[in-house]
Amino acid sequence: MKIPFNKPYISPKEEEYIIRALKSQRHSGNNAFGQKAISFMKDKYGFNEIFLTPSCTSAMEMGALLAGIKPGDEVILPSYTFSSTVNSVVIFGAKPVFCEIEPNTLNIDVSMIESLITPRTKMIIPIDYAGISCEIEEIMKIADKNNIIVMQDCAQSFGGYFNGKPNGSIPHLAAFSFHETKNMNAGGEGGGLVVNVPEWHQKAYFMQEKGTDRRLVLDGVKSKYSWVEKGSSYLLSDLLAAGLLAQLEGEEEIISKRRLVTDAYCQLFNSFKKRGNLNIYISEDHIKTNHHAFWVVFDEADNRRRFIERLRAFDIFVYIGYMPLHSSPMGVKFGYKPDSLPITEEISKKVVRLPFYAGMADDGLIYTIERMSLVLNEIYGK
Amino acid sequence: MKIPFNKPYISPKEEEYIIRALKSQRHSGNNAFGQKAISFMKDKYGFNEIFLTPSCTSAMEMGALLAGIKPGDEVILPSYTFSSTVNSVVIFGAKPVFCEIEPNTLNIDVSMIESLITPRTKMIIPIDYAGISCEIEEIMKIADKNNIIVMQDCAQSFGGYFNGKPNGSIPHLAAFSFHETKNMNAGGEGGGLVVNVPEWHQKAYFMQEKGTDRRLVLDGVKSKYSWVEKGSSYLLSDLLAAGLLAQLEGEEEIISKRRLVTDAYCQLFNSFKKRGNLNIYISEDHIKTNHHAFWVVFDEADNRRRFIERLRAFDIFVYIGYMPLHSSPMGVKFGYKPDSLPITEEISKKVVRLPFYAGMADDGLIYTIERMSLVLNEIYGK
Repeated sequence: MKIPFNKPYISPKEEEYIIRALKSQRHSGNNAFGQKAISFMKDKYGFNEIFLTPSCTSAMEMGALLAGIKPGDEVILPSYTFSSTVNSVVIFGAKPVFCEIEPNTLNIDVSMIESLITPRTKMIIPIDYAGISCEIEEIMKIADKNNIIVMQDCAQSFGGYFNGKPNGSIPHLAAFSFHETKNMNAGGEGGGLVVNVPEWHQKAYFMQEKGTDRRLVLDGVKSKYSWVEKGSSYLLSDLLAAGLLAQLEGEEEIISKRRLVTDAYCQLFNSFKKRGNLNIYISEDHIKTNHHAFWVVFDEADNRRRFIERLRAFDIFVYIGYMPLHSSPMGVKFGYKPDSLPITEEISKKVVRLPFYAGMADDGLIYTIERMSLVLNEIYGK
Repeated sequence: MKIPFNKPYISPKEEEYIIRALKSQRHSGNNAFGQKAISFMKDKYGFNEIFLTPSCTSAMEMGALLAGIKPGDEVILPSYTFSSTVNSVVIFGAKPVFCEIEPNTLNIDVSMIESLITPRTKMIIPIDYAGISCEIEEIMKIADKNNIIVMQDCAQSFGGYFNGKPNGSIPHLAAFSFHETKNMNAGGEGGGLVVNVPEWHQKAYFMQEKGTDRRLVLDGVKSKYSWVEKGSSYLLSDLLAAGLLAQLEGEEEIISKRRLVTDAYCQLFNSFKKRGNLNIYISEDHIKTNHHAFWVVFDEADNRRRFIERLRAFDIFVYIGYMPLHSSPMGVKFGYKPDSLPITEEISKKVVRLPFYAGMADDGLIYTIERMSLVLNEIYGK
């Protein structure tokens, strides 16, 4: 039996919706299914406004453009994240300022943020690793005090909550991923940008539509549209929005399947926690996970290696996670060295991400747990 | 009967391919259908390399990033084009330098380009208006002499030829649109970037994949990928690539239907050309059209207005075309005035684009021609 790291979930109504979108012959961006998906999300999650985009990366670029990121600006973000978090501002000339992570969530260490703020700091981009929200309310307090924009990278955390509020509803800007690898996917690729500042909405409409005021023409305010802003084509095909809508409607089903995976991993790893001196996430009352992922920080890099290799022999695909950005070739160009962020560097050498997808609950979870138990017993003794 | 300005064509195999892509559960970018579509295009059109992207806009942004466009660079382009042509370099800080168009094609006036070149000129972006190639070989000569990169905006011209060579195969970079409004569409939204400079390929792979060297991992050269470049997520969902492949396979059918539309418009407008002093494109031997669009420049703006209004009364949707970029709010910010480019300004007030889609050949073309003939007789007398 082969257990891939990820396998996208296909919703029952997905095929039907996608074909309806195709046959409508109006399947470019912001058409019928896109509008439905947007309404659904605004009603259910209370986003002030959300734009569907081709990817989370492009959502973050749109956010960076909206925030006016320009050469010379500094942006604070964790080094332990995907390259898109940083590239979304680096392509516009910003300088990344990397922050350490804290060990319970592997999210940005909020206690270090203020020491990194300079007069050039324009933005903070915290991420919600593995679907667990960062300490967004504390980050917003720091940002407001220092007049800094917060764009939350919620690539992994759609459908989770912080203090009872849906992820993405608290910061100025938030970006979601609906990629094949995420809880809910939009036909393989897709993203969304939440804009919670009402004064930015009109500019965002213009930026999404190639920098034109086409929106005013659609609203009947103007008769012809022209070039009024910087912008791009931050639009999601209606075929992909149709796929997303089917998944949004099936969220409860998806989450309940994924919860079983979390529960099984928790049970297994808790029983090895002391013996192996393993670090796994200890849940906190104010954060509700969306059951996106499960990670384990091993006691030693060598035990991680053994764990990965032994499971690979069972055809179970475990993943090492991110290479820290600060010590990557690009990070080094920005003046960082591996030991600039020792906690991140250390954790990244010991962490694994486990296979995690909705379908595992139906097929493969027991096989996976049994094999992992066997391997952990080999490593740490019975 | 209602004749919209555009109606996307759905290919016979499109639904089947899209559902196959969905059910593969590997439908993110650069998967099976994307690879097939890329091979198909490289074999048929001789592109050195082509990358499928979420839109033509994002293809051009990828091209701009690949060419190293940065603040202070100047880019020469026609003012008579869509906002994406200019935004793709303006978002990276470049200054647009607008060039006039010549009246037979409404493409960039090549004879004016050299007078606009300065030591800061980094790129020329000619467009192929209405699917008719610009004078790309002459532009390449000027560019090579001055060490300038050419990115051809082939948004409208996929499938056409210049001197027997497929559009997109001649310049350093070329961008295609597979949007709903184009001859061949990729599930509503899509684009492609041709990279004809082999030395740029590796960098392009990295930039398409969020600035990581994931490509080297897929090729077995490295075991883990990291952040090595600027980049974005310039990837087209495999669902959309599946739609595109179906359309590519049906190109002959699509073109033959569209040719009937060109022929009918040519016949009609040629018979009014002298009477109305109308300007329509006179075909040239070295250029083969892809039958994307048909435009007419009227003798007077007022006759254009009458033509549009009278046809609207018959439910036929004729479109005014582009608002020139140089005289738009953003163009003015860059220091231009309407009379900075008098030819462009004049033509833009008199030009119309006619309804044009493959399905017209089956239904609506005769109705459209009859009503247009009626209206032209009203305007210019029998």
